[in-house]
Amino acid sequence: MNKSPLTINPLTSPLLTDLYQFTMMETYLQTGMDKTAVFEFFTRALPKYRGFLIAAGLDSVLSFLENLHFTAEEIDYLRQTGRFSKKLLDYLASFRFNGDVYALPEGTVCFAGEPLIRVEAPIPVAQFVESRLMNFMHFETSIASKAARCCLAAGGKILIDFGLRRAHGAEAGTLAARAAYICGFTGTATVLAQTLYGIPIFGTMAHSYIEAVGDEEEAFVNFARTNPNNVTFLIDTYDTLKGAQHAVQAANRMTKEGIRTDAVRLDSGDFLSLSKAVREILDQNGLPDIKIVASGNLDEHMIQTLVASRAPIDAFGVGTKLDTSEDAPYMECAYKLMEYDGKPKLKKSSGKATLPGRKQIMRSFRDGKMVKDLVTLEGDAQEGTPLIKKVMADGRRLAPTVDLAALAAYTKSQLQALPENLRQLSEASSYPVEFSPALLHLREKAEQLIGE
Amino acid sequence: MNKSPLTINPLTSPLLTDLYQFTMMETYLQTGMDKTAVFEFFTRALPKYRGFLIAAGLDSVLSFLENLHFTAEEIDYLRQTGRFSKKLLDYLASFRFNGDVYALPEGTVCFAGEPLIRVEAPIPVAQFVESRLMNFMHFETSIASKAARCCLAAGGKILIDFGLRRAHGAEAGTLAARAAYICGFTGTATVLAQTLYGIPIFGTMAHSYIEAVGDEEEAFVNFARTNPNNVTFLIDTYDTLKGAQHAVQAANRMTKEGIRTDAVRLDSGDFLSLSKAVREILDQNGLPDIKIVASGNLDEHMIQTLVASRAPIDAFGVGTKLDTSEDAPYMECAYKLMEYDGKPKLKKSSGKATLPGRKQIMRSFRDGKMVKDLVTLEGDAQEGTPLIKKVMADGRRLAPTVDLAALAAYTKSQLQALPENLRQLSEASSYPVEFSPALLHLREKAEQLIGE
Repeated sequence: MNKSPLTINPLTSPLLTDLYQFTMMETYLQTGMDKTAVFEFFTRALPKYRGFLIAAGLDSVLSFLENLHFTAEEIDYLRQTGRFSKKLLDYLASFRFNGDVYALPEGTVCFAGEPLIRVEAPIPVAQFVESRLMNFMHFETSIASKAARCCLAAGGKILIDFGLRRAHGAEAGTLAARAAYICGFTGTATVLAQTLYGIPIFGTMAHSYIEAVGDEEEAFVNFARTNPNNVTFLIDTYDTLKGAQHAVQAANRMTKEGIRTDAVRLDSGDFLSLSKAVREILDQNGLPDIKIVASGNLDEHMIQTLVASRAPIDAFGVGTKLDTSEDAPYMECAYKLMEYDGKPKLKKSSGKATLPGRKQIMRSFRDGKMVKDLVTLEGDAQEGTPLIKKVMADGRRLAPTVDLAALAAYTKSQLQALPENLRQLSEASSYPVEFSPALLHLREKAEQLIGE
Repeated sequence: MNKSPLTINPLTSPLLTDLYQFTMMETYLQTGMDKTAVFEFFTRALPKYRGFLIAAGLDSVLSFLENLHFTAEEIDYLRQTGRFSKKLLDYLASFRFNGDVYALPEGTVCFAGEPLIRVEAPIPVAQFVESRLMNFMHFETSIASKAARCCLAAGGKILIDFGLRRAHGAEAGTLAARAAYICGFTGTATVLAQTLYGIPIFGTMAHSYIEAVGDEEEAFVNFARTNPNNVTFLIDTYDTLKGAQHAVQAANRMTKEGIRTDAVRLDSGDFLSLSKAVREILDQNGLPDIKIVASGNLDEHMIQTLVASRAPIDAFGVGTKLDTSEDAPYMECAYKLMEYDGKPKLKKSSGKATLPGRKQIMRSFRDGKMVKDLVTLEGDAQEGTPLIKKVMADGRRLAPTVDLAALAAYTKSQLQALPENLRQLSEASSYPVEFSPALLHLREKAEQLIGE
């Protein structure tokens, strides 16, 4: 059982799940439980440093649901474990996601207690998709929310994702690039994110390149000649200010050869003082069009400080702290049963109690800013704009994958509608999320049904 | 360019890298720089809450290096970007990793400033592998180090990885299961981790299952009858102590049917008082062999407290905080040029200066405990046991993949050799890591070579 057989794709295999999904499925099949279950994914509480979230992950989830099936080899693997009945293995051969899905569109601002996705399907199906659905929604929403904070801090300056090397694995790297892009980042350093999603890519040189060449000016010139359409010089390998002088000399030589120098990059030291000094060197040498890029341990707080201090930095490379959501690497979130066979369901576990039923979120606005959310039951007539939409019927998407540029524009409009207190990064601000009488009444009813 | 073409595997594609790897490669090819480069991967500083690290990720890196190549479709993709020369695209067609690799064995205790991997190859090759090498080493070492702390805290009690749903993507989920297993975890809930790595898997039921059935005792009985070799009852859906009573009734009924109940699981509430109360209920009902499993927001600190308080818990499910390395979701680490064409290399960037040369770590022991590390140059005769071994020559592994059970045994022996202060979790303790005169002398020489 060592090493993945060729036909098992670790990114799409239904074996990428928790064992209990199969053991529960066994019981559901053997005891004839196949009625419709309603599950919702939501966050129980916002992370300490988040005043709001940006919903993300839906496209990944819908692709997962559309493609969900077991190959003969995967069924064979399960057979060989000796854990499962022939009935289960036969069932898996034709297993597909055949349910309906309702969701907040990706890029929508949301809060604790609000469902991001609702799944309605026969219980063996609706239950089975839990692990991977959470895996996508939790991560992508975490990164999108962090990226949105960076964009609010940057005040319109260019942001680039540099995080692949310290993202948690391959998929985290590419999904983080996508989450950042839909929240306003201009692009990423990760080539595969362009291949997969069409996201613009950026990048030029590492310190190792400068060191290997030895002479900094020669390194810059050689690079520009061989990458004439993409010229940014990394200037902090030895001494940032001398590096800026070398960049000036290289840029002037390149101008004579018809090659334009776009930018210099700082990757260490005090960005405020260095960017001012470098700007001065560039300007004094008649190179006002060369931009300054800063990277290295940046997050929304450092960006905000630099922008507020009027550091002459034109673009920020944000890596590790974005791709790991460093100050909130996880969220309290769950995928919970809300209804089975028409009956409302809840759990009462200490600190983890749930509200039953199929929910809708009604958002109220004033002067273009969001002012209040009401979580209520689907179909309960209430004021406001309903946020949750049907996105999949009988296992098929109701609309094609959203173009990422359009998605980024949507997220931008969402961020513009944030109330002013939520645009501040200093601490988590509250926003009124209320729960309707209809919902609280259903909870009472569900508690009575438990009948203890 | 939307959506992955079929022949591009996002986990193994060389496009999973930073753009600058290609732009630097362009310059190296066009300017004829192809001499041997030596790069090392190391951590600059330990995370705040880590007194030591466990090296992990080497097997992933060696597999990556062995399989590294460009498909025709990948080269075609790069051609279509219009960014690269025909010379580069032709070079990529036969591009392979043809270098040597030296490394700390996976599972080895290590510290800041110590190289975990050294790569020696022509510079276009040695440079190119940086992004994915770091992506693996950084994540797997982070999780292994967190898992080792959990094992030290658990004092021999069983630990199971439950983290897939909040791991950062698919690969993070399976690699975390592996990192935990090699550090002493008994298994994981993630089925694919067994498929890929042969790791034992565990899991039975979710709260949703109990809720869907409605009656807790009936839910337990139905589950046991349909999964007779894997019986653990989740007892906190409504009320943990009533759940324990229902588990007793179900277990007694199952005994008559010849089905053994293995355990009950607590997933919320105060684990110390609840585990004692549940233990008492089980014992008073003549079921002393039924074990108690606890899960939910656990980390090494909570485990240590529960173990110290003699909570009658037999096994812990550790999820989110393990798979995200919650208190240290990233490490300050780097892959840096140490030598090019026989000349020592370093960077002097503020706060990120490096020590040049090919390094070896000599570890000294006293009474079976490690007492001091000396980082020196390869070949410098010094006291102690050398830790870095050659693991790959000309792009081929020198030994087959290590059996994971053997690897777990090796890591266990490493943890047993930790000095007592490093076994404490309360705060990061220091351990003496010295740098040899030979190494410091080489730094002087390299600084002179920069010649400023």
